[in-house]
Amino acid sequence: MAKVAIVMGSKSDLKVMEPARLTLQKFKIKSEERIISAHRNPDKLVAYVREAEKKGIEVFIAGAGKAAHLPGVIAAHTSSPVIGVPVETSDLGGMDSLLSIVQMPRGVPVATVAINGSQNAALLAVQILSIKDKELKKKFEEYKKSLAEPPKKKTEEKDEEPIIDG
Amino acid sequence: MAKVAIVMGSKSDLKVMEPARLTLQKFKIKSEERIISAHRNPDKLVAYVREAEKKGIEVFIAGAGKAAHLPGVIAAHTSSPVIGVPVETSDLGGMDSLLSIVQMPRGVPVATVAINGSQNAALLAVQILSIKDKELKKKFEEYKKSLAEPPKKKTEEKDEEPIIDG
Amino acid sequence: MAKVAIVMGSKSDLKVMEPARLTLQKFKIKSEERIISAHRNPDKLVAYVREAEKKGIEVFIAGAGKAAHLPGVIAAHTSSPVIGVPVETSDLGGMDSLLSIVQMPRGVPVATVAINGSQNAALLAVQILSIKDKELKKKFEEYKKSLAEPPKKKTEEKDEEPIIDG
Amino acid sequence: MAKVAIVMGSKSDLKVMEPARLTLQKFKIKSEERIISAHRNPDKLVAYVREAEKKGIEVFIAGAGKAAHLPGVIAAHTSSPVIGVPVETSDLGGMDSLLSIVQMPRGVPVATVAINGSQNAALLAVQILSIKDKELKKKFEEYKKSLAEPPKKKTEEKDEEPIIDG
Amino acid sequence: MAKVAIVMGSKSDLKVMEPARLTLQKFKIKSEERIISAHRNPDKLVAYVREAEKKGIEVFIAGAGKAAHLPGVIAAHTSSPVIGVPVETSDLGGMDSLLSIVQMPRGVPVATVAINGSQNAALLAVQILSIKDKELKKKFEEYKKSLAEPPKKKTEEKDEEPIIDG
Amino acid sequence: MAKVAIVMGSKSDLKVMEPARLTLQKFKIKSEERIISAHRNPDKLVAYVREAEKKGIEVFIAGAGKAAHLPGVIAAHTSSPVIGVPVETSDLGGMDSLLSIVQMPRGVPVATVAINGSQNAALLAVQILSIKDKELKKKFEEYKKSLAEPPKKKTEEKDEEPIIDG
Amino acid sequence: MAKVAIVMGSKSDLKVMEPARLTLQKFKIKSEERIISAHRNPDKLVAYVREAEKKGIEVFIAGAGKAAHLPGVIAAHTSSPVIGVPVETSDLGGMDSLLSIVQMPRGVPVATVAINGSQNAALLAVQILSIKDKELKKKFEEYKKSLAEPPKKKTEEKDEEPIIDG
Amino acid sequence: MAKVAIVMGSKSDLKVMEPARLTLQKFKIKSEERIISAHRNPDKLVAYVREAEKKGIEVFIAGAGKAAHLPGVIAAHTSSPVIGVPVETSDLGGMDSLLSIVQMPRGVPVATVAINGSQNAALLAVQILSIKDKELKKKFEEYKKSLAEPPKKKTEEKDEEPIIDG
Repeated sequence: MAKVAIVMGSKSDLKVMEPARLTLQKFKIKSEERIISAHRNPDKLVAYVREAEKKGIEVFIAGAGKAAHLPGVIAAHTSSPVIGVPVETSDLGGMDSLLSIVQMPRGVPVATVAINGSQNAALLAVQILSIKDKELKKKFEEYKKSLAEPPKKKTEEKDEEPIIDG
Repeated sequence: MAKVAIVMGSKSDLKVMEPARLTLQKFKIKSEERIISAHRNPDKLVAYVREAEKKGIEVFIAGAGKAAHLPGVIAAHTSSPVIGVPVETSDLGGMDSLLSIVQMPRGVPVATVAINGSQNAALLAVQILSIKDKELKKKFEEYKKSLAEPPKKKTEEKDEEPIIDG
Repeated sequence: MAKVAIVMGSKSDLKVMEPARLTLQKFKIKSEERIISAHRNPDKLVAYVREAEKKGIEVFIAGAGKAAHLPGVIAAHTSSPVIGVPVETSDLGGMDSLLSIVQMPRGVPVATVAINGSQNAALLAVQILSIKDKELKKKFEEYKKSLAEPPKKKTEEKDEEPIIDG
Repeated sequence: MAKVAIVMGSKSDLKVMEPARLTLQKFKIKSEERIISAHRNPDKLVAYVREAEKKGIEVFIAGAGKAAHLPGVIAAHTSSPVIGVPVETSDLGGMDSLLSIVQMPRGVPVATVAINGSQNAALLAVQILSIKDKELKKKFEEYKKSLAEPPKKKTEEKDEEPIIDG
Repeated sequence: MAKVAIVMGSKSDLKVMEPARLTLQKFKIKSEERIISAHRNPDKLVAYVREAEKKGIEVFIAGAGKAAHLPGVIAAHTSSPVIGVPVETSDLGGMDSLLSIVQMPRGVPVATVAINGSQNAALLAVQILSIKDKELKKKFEEYKKSLAEPPKKKTEEKDEEPIIDG
Repeated sequence: MAKVAIVMGSKSDLKVMEPARLTLQKFKIKSEERIISAHRNPDKLVAYVREAEKKGIEVFIAGAGKAAHLPGVIAAHTSSPVIGVPVETSDLGGMDSLLSIVQMPRGVPVATVAINGSQNAALLAVQILSIKDKELKKKFEEYKKSLAEPPKKKTEEKDEEPIIDG
Repeated sequence: MAKVAIVMGSKSDLKVMEPARLTLQKFKIKSEERIISAHRNPDKLVAYVREAEKKGIEVFIAGAGKAAHLPGVIAAHTSSPVIGVPVETSDLGGMDSLLSIVQMPRGVPVATVAINGSQNAALLAVQILSIKDKELKKKFEEYKKSLAEPPKKKTEEKDEEPIIDG
Repeated sequence: MAKVAIVMGSKSDLKVMEPARLTLQKFKIKSEERIISAHRNPDKLVAYVREAEKKGIEVFIAGAGKAAHLPGVIAAHTSSPVIGVPVETSDLGGMDSLLSIVQMPRGVPVATVAINGSQNAALLAVQILSIKDKELKKKFEEYKKSLAEPPKKKTEEKDEEPIIDG
């Protein structure tokens, strides 16, 4: 059963949001993806959020661009944590998406990550689910340690090692 | 019966929105004011929007600050025109409110006016209602002409007249 | 007879403004397009606005970029509603166009939509004209409902349906 | 034993961060407050974060202004969720704090809330802790419902009720 | 006879624009001030610009705030140089005024000075009029030299001199 | 003899500044172009500015990007009018160039035009030189009239004419 | 003999720059303060910079606001390190000062600190002078350690200590 | 032995930082490059900074993008001067990197250069090391003079010479 819902407002957000799904997969956390616009299909969105909670969804990840209301609208209808991913926009670079998501009023928080930061959204979901899952917490701790190691795949590259003596 | 609904997200927006009500009064257009947060009370907001349409509301004016979703959420639930008033914020000056209101995605427009521009929101509502009300259109045309006249109240001031020969 | 005028300041805005014309066509609303610069041909613009009102134009849509005065100048000369479309700019992304259009002073509103949001400008015009045209209002309500439906054209894509179980 | 650590970079942030502590108190969640600068006392900060995890801290709330590295540095040293509160600045309004906190690189998320949004940071912590505490989840659901109710304390005020017939 | 017209959109701009008048006075250049809104009284503005040129006005200084179209509209109707003064705004600091004035399209320049920079607008007018007035050019050169001198009025202050040995 | 100096800080600005030279050519105003950096070759810049004034240069056009000090430094050393052209930058779009040029302190104005607006800089120079050259003023008036005419070159295009009946 | 020159463009910058002088005093580094505008008195500025180098000045600290060219102009005339302090502005918060100082072109760096960050400018000067002064380096290391200690003056306050158990 | 450490947060910053290494090479200053993320490998970063100081590193150059904490974290752990290079970002152009680096709190300065300005970072390092190395100072003075000379390589180009008579 899925524990994380990944919701986005439009099909065009799929590519930006894909790292969220793949990252959760690495941690063996089941997720489900939905494309539901907060503005074009608000009733379906509310219905989905309510049903999702019943089904066992524990964290929502919501990506949206421009006047990005999706994460806030989900947050208005659930008591589960909602993580917002501002999607980059061609005109204002995503500053509009960022402010529309992060500047939520008192009472209804959205946990906002960087513009296009869907991978971090997934990692945050892992951290949140680790609150009650010691196994998962261990996996996350290992992941964190692995961040500190130089990548090993390509032997000719030595990351985080001296590169040149200028 | 009220034709214009003035909705705002929080009591703190009342002062910014008051010119909307007063301006509609001058044009003898009945309005009703509601304070309903899109985030804290989304169900009540949706219920109100639907009922408002049935009651005869023809234009919505919605004022909100920060991640200002109120106008967009109303627009998602009505086919009537929605006018958005971005409310000034102490930290970002209202740039957050403006972008959250004006950058609506395709399909669901919000007619956005200036930051704190509730008077203009009311005038826009008058222009919209004038589409089917010739009397009102005349009144608006007279109002427009009056804008061009120097204010007459204080005789010692001569607006739009030469002030000084430098 | 045309009911909506689509005005833009330069031929280079044509592509950005085209969705406005096409959207109005879908609603069977006659429109006329004009390219008249507020700065290079101000007299022609004023003459056109006055003549347009006499001819039966009920709503103006005006698109412009940079120091985008076109919508405001039209609004100064008409009592009909004016919808402003800020056109994206290569240097500042359209922030200059947006602020030049939306921050109108008291007395002369411009109903501003998103940067490059000409389709929404047309939809707003439809909403405004629906004030006195119940048929049109119905069409708009149907359009709104259609927004909520997944696109049906390509059978292999299932929009707004689960995409993957992560 | 405290479950939430509220950390800030300077004593001047105390006022902005106070709602976090008070909100957690309302939910009967023990918290502890520390003032440790990421830049002036980095070793103490790292030591505190490591000891905090051992002591049972499950969520960090970190508030900071300007080049606000505190939340990110904490996130670098813990596998627990870190919530970042950008503190308003007198010159740039807090845009510097916001970008320094939210734009975290891949691998190390910070759950960012609004500028000065320490109350929402606490609510987010409650939501996160609710993942494993059904009692707390219930309390949060009640809190969410209470948001939708008009405040009852002052009888002469009727919030979210019609205010005036224009 | 006045050679410089100082035009502003609203009486509230008078204080910001006063240094323009006073500076021209110091150079013994006659000026005339007018308050005419480009949006509320466009016909009067055009009439004034045309009449001004006939009367002998050689340079226009125009101050305006928000969607500040005044300088651009004047520039559209005159072949004389137009100097634009963006007026500070309470919400966006004058960034809106600046962009609305400086980002003029090809063909119709506005010589823009700093936000609230009406004194510099007058100095620029002096420089422009000096093109054909050698006496004035000399005066301006003397003024420029005087800028380099420490102010002499208050004997206890020694500007541009060492202040303290740290 | 050249009357207008076109100065830029780096060879990479040549393309942005070319329309200035071409526009002056159309008005038969002799200009000279120089590439002198205010930061890398300040002495040569000062020497050039002083010599230029003696040679008969009456207006300076200066284009620069990033921390664009060139126009201001020229203005510091001449009593002739200086027109500044902010050059677009790849990172901040030219906002840095614009603010570095337009926000000049009291006493030393720079007449700023739009980002990359070198053509308008030349037109402003023409307007300034017209102050003492009636022939030139006539030419500029004719140019201004020509702006209002639809372009005639390509017969299949009808600019500023109805394009389509939607 | 002074080793650090503290230069500012206007007397109004004195208050912002004072912490630089006081901080250098604490480290027993002699400094001298000058108020010389890069725009109003460019020759004096150049003369001062050249003479300062001869006198033994080894580091320049320059504070300026708006189109803040002072640090860059000093850097153009010296081979010593120049530290720039962007001064907060009332309209744009100092964003203009910051970009005018930090975005220097290739070849002529300015070491920029935070808006109004004159104390840090002095500390940076100390760090630079420590390159050849081991005594000074030790003092700076002690200063750095002292940053990590809770202030001891007021006994009732316990900084960096637990403040409250929520 | 290396005197300058060039540190960056990610391999993707290598290209932006390369001019730093090459510029130091020209001045025969040995440098060493490291890729160590402040967030993914904070312990290694701290260890490296401490070891670097012992090894004889006298100046740090640190480049980072987005929430760019690297320079600040290094500065927190060393008493040597730290030069920060904000790396351009695809969404916000590097404004996020710039503010995260330059807006450091009191006590811990970072000498910030322009977005992508790694060459200037190296030149600043040269200026700092020149404090105790007269030979190096001479070289830098020669470099500065060379900036003022027109490039000689390509004979057909005459830089800083008249280009065209318009």
